[in-house]
Amino acid sequence: MEPNPGITAPERKVMKVLNGETIAPPPIWIMRQAGRYLPEYRETRATAKGFLDLCYTPDLAVEVTLQPIRRYGLDASILFSDILVLPDALKCGVRFVEGEGPRLDPIDADGIGKLDPSGMHEHLAPVYETVGRLRRELPPETTLLGFCGAPWTVATYMIAGRGTPDQAPARLFGYREPDAFLKLLDLLADMSADYLIRQIEAGADAVQVFDSWSGVLDEACFEAYCIRPMKRIADKVRAVKPGAKIIGFPKGAGMLYRSYRQNTGVDALGLDWTVPLSFAAELQKDGPIQGNLDPLRVVAGRKSIKDGVDRILDVLANGPLIFNLGHGITPQADPEDVGYLVDYVRGTA
Amino acid sequence: MEPNPGITAPERKVMKVLNGETIAPPPIWIMRQAGRYLPEYRETRATAKGFLDLCYTPDLAVEVTLQPIRRYGLDASILFSDILVLPDALKCGVRFVEGEGPRLDPIDADGIGKLDPSGMHEHLAPVYETVGRLRRELPPETTLLGFCGAPWTVATYMIAGRGTPDQAPARLFGYREPDAFLKLLDLLADMSADYLIRQIEAGADAVQVFDSWSGVLDEACFEAYCIRPMKRIADKVRAVKPGAKIIGFPKGAGMLYRSYRQNTGVDALGLDWTVPLSFAAELQKDGPIQGNLDPLRVVAGRKSIKDGVDRILDVLANGPLIFNLGHGITPQADPEDVGYLVDYVRGTA
Repeated sequence: MEPNPGITAPERKVMKVLNGETIAPPPIWIMRQAGRYLPEYRETRATAKGFLDLCYTPDLAVEVTLQPIRRYGLDASILFSDILVLPDALKCGVRFVEGEGPRLDPIDADGIGKLDPSGMHEHLAPVYETVGRLRRELPPETTLLGFCGAPWTVATYMIAGRGTPDQAPARLFGYREPDAFLKLLDLLADMSADYLIRQIEAGADAVQVFDSWSGVLDEACFEAYCIRPMKRIADKVRAVKPGAKIIGFPKGAGMLYRSYRQNTGVDALGLDWTVPLSFAAELQKDGPIQGNLDPLRVVAGRKSIKDGVDRILDVLANGPLIFNLGHGITPQADPEDVGYLVDYVRGTA
Repeated sequence: MEPNPGITAPERKVMKVLNGETIAPPPIWIMRQAGRYLPEYRETRATAKGFLDLCYTPDLAVEVTLQPIRRYGLDASILFSDILVLPDALKCGVRFVEGEGPRLDPIDADGIGKLDPSGMHEHLAPVYETVGRLRRELPPETTLLGFCGAPWTVATYMIAGRGTPDQAPARLFGYREPDAFLKLLDLLADMSADYLIRQIEAGADAVQVFDSWSGVLDEACFEAYCIRPMKRIADKVRAVKPGAKIIGFPKGAGMLYRSYRQNTGVDALGLDWTVPLSFAAELQKDGPIQGNLDPLRVVAGRKSIKDGVDRILDVLANGPLIFNLGHGITPQADPEDVGYLVDYVRGTA
């Protein structure tokens, strides 16, 4: 794939879809495409002192971000970083324990009152540098996506001090201390908006907000914890960057995907793999969608990839679609099969 | 609550709702109501050698099943047992490790071919005895529910040998070895039907099928793993017990709840707490529903119980509703607050 210097941002395929166009075949990128399934990623990762070091060292972050683009020529590149850089900027003791996932110093209502975001941009300067370098080094036809974690999902880690299967600590905290919890979500929403604005200023074409744990909430909590903060982020970003394109990914939102788009104002919906395609088609009538192949189909091999892609394209290819997995690719995926997936979606397999 | 010997099975409140009647206030029972949140349960549990021993000893199983009925006068009693008694009857090495959950000897395609259900009724005779004794000892107005795990959910444990956060082992196995996996689901469906028929013969008024892990599947897998086996169970049960009432609980089915009822023939849908109430109301137009308070609202205390119950009753009390939690009650719940929940739903708090 030759870079085409004549391409401008609005002409990038993913941006066209975000603007409501239908493109055939659909553009494709893969959540967590810079990840452990790639040997070149594991090699670069091994040179970093730790996972956060990888995120905060532009040389390394740029390198791992570009690796899947070089290998597969994907239509979008997403900044390599982590959703926990915001609590890290808040000095919440974020650390990554090999084989155990993230750990933080759990926060309570008292601690929430003391959080100070004033140093965030200084702390996150390496991320902005990474974004700028990526935009210069990526092929011009490749969309560059910035991202952040959604306030609810980030808050679940801050309250529990770690990942949990059902986010019970944060859900309980929200029921017991609603004022403090909403204050935390507002703080994270404002920081997220500022963070995304800086990423856009540094060169991101569009941004995605990952609400990986929105599927464990009842309707009232989903509205308070997921919809309201996402609207706050979208409004703040667009107040500074009118027309900024935002993909919302409230994983597991189920029936609530529709009200999520209607009430937050996100441009596109990231759909997880449990969303039935008939419902996805209905959502697509209201605007672009992104998704939603089960990541385990990639691990299972080419027959299950083909079956899954066929089903999705049959139902969704005639509307604005960004092809993607329904969640991040897993370390068990074979890079050759990922190549097959990309080719198969593009009709060149 | 005085036993009323004049009450016959169809006059029990939960049975009336299962027959499509609207009852105000709605009848209430609580998933996992015989459980660790009750001190009397913990006391009885401590007298058993192990968890399976508790399930297979009628004296103990009857006692723990009756405990929440004595305490709260709930409208339904559910047999105390476990969804893994079927793999245990298949000699899959089921054991419960304190603090770690269930363990089984993981099964592969070869092992699936060798499974032999012929001894199941002998193995499960103590369960049938428990059901019979319960029906005789329960107040006549109390509905007695039998239950089993759904084939998909039971299979996830058999393939992985344990519980996993996302059921990746079984999902992968299903993609890679579809023939063997469907054979396993058929075997479990047939055993489940036979098991439920015996429970009904022993005295169960109705049965519930728990598909606790149906929320991790894409649409095609949901149809193959959840809907098809549930229809097979319902058809087989009703061939022997015409008119048998079946509650299906495909936790996390989201948008697919509707097609689940339409295509399986279950009488009532158990709704998890993430189902939006507006969608629950639509589902209720097609038949009875059961649910769906977030169990953590009970842990969080009376204000969050009241808020959650008010929302549910506002939207769903005018149709056939069995009030319940949206998943099993957790050990952290305060028995006094559970009493408040029951009273509040009944308007006597």
